[in-house]
Amino acid sequence: MITEPKRIYNFALFLTLFISTSAISESLIVQKQKFSLKNYTTTNGSELPIVEVGWESYGQLNEEKDNAILITHHFTATSHAAGKYSPDDARAGYWDSIIGPGKAIDTNKFFVLSSDTLVNANVHLPHVITTGPASINPQTQKPYGLDFPVVTIRDFVNVQNALVKSLGIKKLHAIVGASMGSHQALEWASAFPDEVDRVISIIGIGESDSWKKANIESWAAPIKEDPLWNKGNYYDSEPPLDGLQRSLASIILFAHHGYIFDRRFKEKMNIDRAPSESVINDFEVTSWIKKAAAKRAPTVDANHILYLTRACQLFRIGHKSSLALGIAPIKAKIMLFPAKNDVLLAKYNMEKLYTEMLMQKKDVTYEEIEGPWGHLDGIYAIGVKATKIRNFLEND
Amino acid sequence: MITEPKRIYNFALFLTLFISTSAISESLIVQKQKFSLKNYTTTNGSELPIVEVGWESYGQLNEEKDNAILITHHFTATSHAAGKYSPDDARAGYWDSIIGPGKAIDTNKFFVLSSDTLVNANVHLPHVITTGPASINPQTQKPYGLDFPVVTIRDFVNVQNALVKSLGIKKLHAIVGASMGSHQALEWASAFPDEVDRVISIIGIGESDSWKKANIESWAAPIKEDPLWNKGNYYDSEPPLDGLQRSLASIILFAHHGYIFDRRFKEKMNIDRAPSESVINDFEVTSWIKKAAAKRAPTVDANHILYLTRACQLFRIGHKSSLALGIAPIKAKIMLFPAKNDVLLAKYNMEKLYTEMLMQKKDVTYEEIEGPWGHLDGIYAIGVKATKIRNFLEND
Repeated sequence: MITEPKRIYNFALFLTLFISTSAISESLIVQKQKFSLKNYTTTNGSELPIVEVGWESYGQLNEEKDNAILITHHFTATSHAAGKYSPDDARAGYWDSIIGPGKAIDTNKFFVLSSDTLVNANVHLPHVITTGPASINPQTQKPYGLDFPVVTIRDFVNVQNALVKSLGIKKLHAIVGASMGSHQALEWASAFPDEVDRVISIIGIGESDSWKKANIESWAAPIKEDPLWNKGNYYDSEPPLDGLQRSLASIILFAHHGYIFDRRFKEKMNIDRAPSESVINDFEVTSWIKKAAAKRAPTVDANHILYLTRACQLFRIGHKSSLALGIAPIKAKIMLFPAKNDVLLAKYNMEKLYTEMLMQKKDVTYEEIEGPWGHLDGIYAIGVKATKIRNFLEND
Repeated sequence: MITEPKRIYNFALFLTLFISTSAISESLIVQKQKFSLKNYTTTNGSELPIVEVGWESYGQLNEEKDNAILITHHFTATSHAAGKYSPDDARAGYWDSIIGPGKAIDTNKFFVLSSDTLVNANVHLPHVITTGPASINPQTQKPYGLDFPVVTIRDFVNVQNALVKSLGIKKLHAIVGASMGSHQALEWASAFPDEVDRVISIIGIGESDSWKKANIESWAAPIKEDPLWNKGNYYDSEPPLDGLQRSLASIILFAHHGYIFDRRFKEKMNIDRAPSESVINDFEVTSWIKKAAAKRAPTVDANHILYLTRACQLFRIGHKSSLALGIAPIKAKIMLFPAKNDVLLAKYNMEKLYTEMLMQKKDVTYEEIEGPWGHLDGIYAIGVKATKIRNFLEND
């Protein structure tokens, strides 16, 4: 099941089709549900009277409640990991290629659930439920804005943990997440080592080093520089759409590798003379990225991007004074899948994490995803690892 | 001779010291000279009544005029590649570790010259002479601003070629350049194949692919977005320093790798709590980069950054419809030195160039520079390749 509308890498397409042929079926029809948690204290000590997040599930929870797999989503995504809300939906969830009946994450065997994070970016998408700076502060009846506390990946995980417990699940069979979803999956294994058996970490890192902190600050800076942002107080006025678009453009850029852009834009590199005529004129690629960002911006909240960025900047497994200390409590079996051509969370990060886990004699395997997309290979090319994922989930 | 004041990678420091021990000496004292060229037609067909660039030299031109080596400079640099203007100068030129009497590029044997490019960034540095949008248009007696034509790496090279010919040099023994300096060195070999014997291309690429075009647009965008930029008309008003600083911050970021930032900032990652308290607060790394950019900005012209960025975006060896066609005319022996940890011009670019050159049976060698700096290893860690460079220059 191909969910990406303009797939342009034929080899990956072929592989994905090949691997999922046996699994092609009607998409699952899914429903969004809401989880509410009262009086949540964030990791930096702030009190939130209520937090609410959306979640959805695929497959059935067994009587023993020991067949649950949690899917944790990436930065720009939502809990919509698989299936469709209605048969007419143009696209299924982002990992529909590997989640469903008979697929790598087999919903005939597993109860798969996926929740929106706190401060989810896509505030204005109809099926997203999240709590963040755009939410109404019950104490003022106005949006929090920057009064919302800085939250960390640990906070995302704490809320998920409460959701999972509310369903009577004492231990997860596995957690699977890509990128910021990997952050959550690894954080779970450190924070609740007795409550998860397996972790699949895709295009992730062990910690956000200084370079990445500075690099993804480019996702925050254009918003903060937009006068309409107004220190986060724009809910009664025009939102900072220009800054938000520039932020999303940077996110889109770093999700891709030159290989995939070359396939898309190379043919036209020489006929477009406008950039040779004035420094004001755009290249086709910059124009394409701007349009993609502009299309996305209206359903995204700018403050939420700031909070997500900060959560990613602050990420280190366990949020302790060293990566080693954060890894120490982990008991789960771990599978690490970096993307070979990732320019956002380059594989040297996962090599470092793998080395540290090996030194601590963790049960860990490491395997690179090949593909032309770069970071997005963790989403679009994941089909090439379907058998590995299935075996990891179905064997002891 | 260590020219970088705050070197923090001890291994590279050790190697550099070790390799250059025999070459430690007083820095050369150098003088800036000016080259003027009338009625220059740019590659996009615009007429410039006069172009002027600065240049300097080290060593003596022999009677046969066949011992000349041209040094072409990188994006943020000037023609000041080696030596000092005065014994009191705090720093010598950027490659003083490899240029000088007895050094890898031995000024006892070679006449080494280096010229400022057109549209050089450092308009307000006292020893820089360049022609660009900040220059006075003789026809209006006002700065060109955006009336200055878009120029390409080929234009830089054409002006250098005229300079070299003005000295009576018919053929260069070699050209050596890093980053944008590599662009020029390779462009020379394609444009004037009978006028250069050897090229050393350091941290370079064969062409700017779409991803890089989009990535370095982040060096232009903050300037264009600064209201003070005013479409390039700011020479009678306040210059767009905020936008320029954000541009320089992006340049500084991409010149580095996470390895070197980790050494500098890691210790303090956990005691700095401010970023956990508000999304407005900076991390130490972002604050450091902002300060470094702010220190640099007053001597840089914003429009010149736009023009340099555009020249780099438009770069492809030979500026033909394919890389293969651009490489075809090259006769020079080529040595390619990518930096293994480069995140700006990642080594896959040079691998591609190397492959294409091998397919065309060019005389080319490829060797990676190891180091923690990333792109800047081409400047700071070049000492580790001193012997290779010397042998390449001194053997047939």
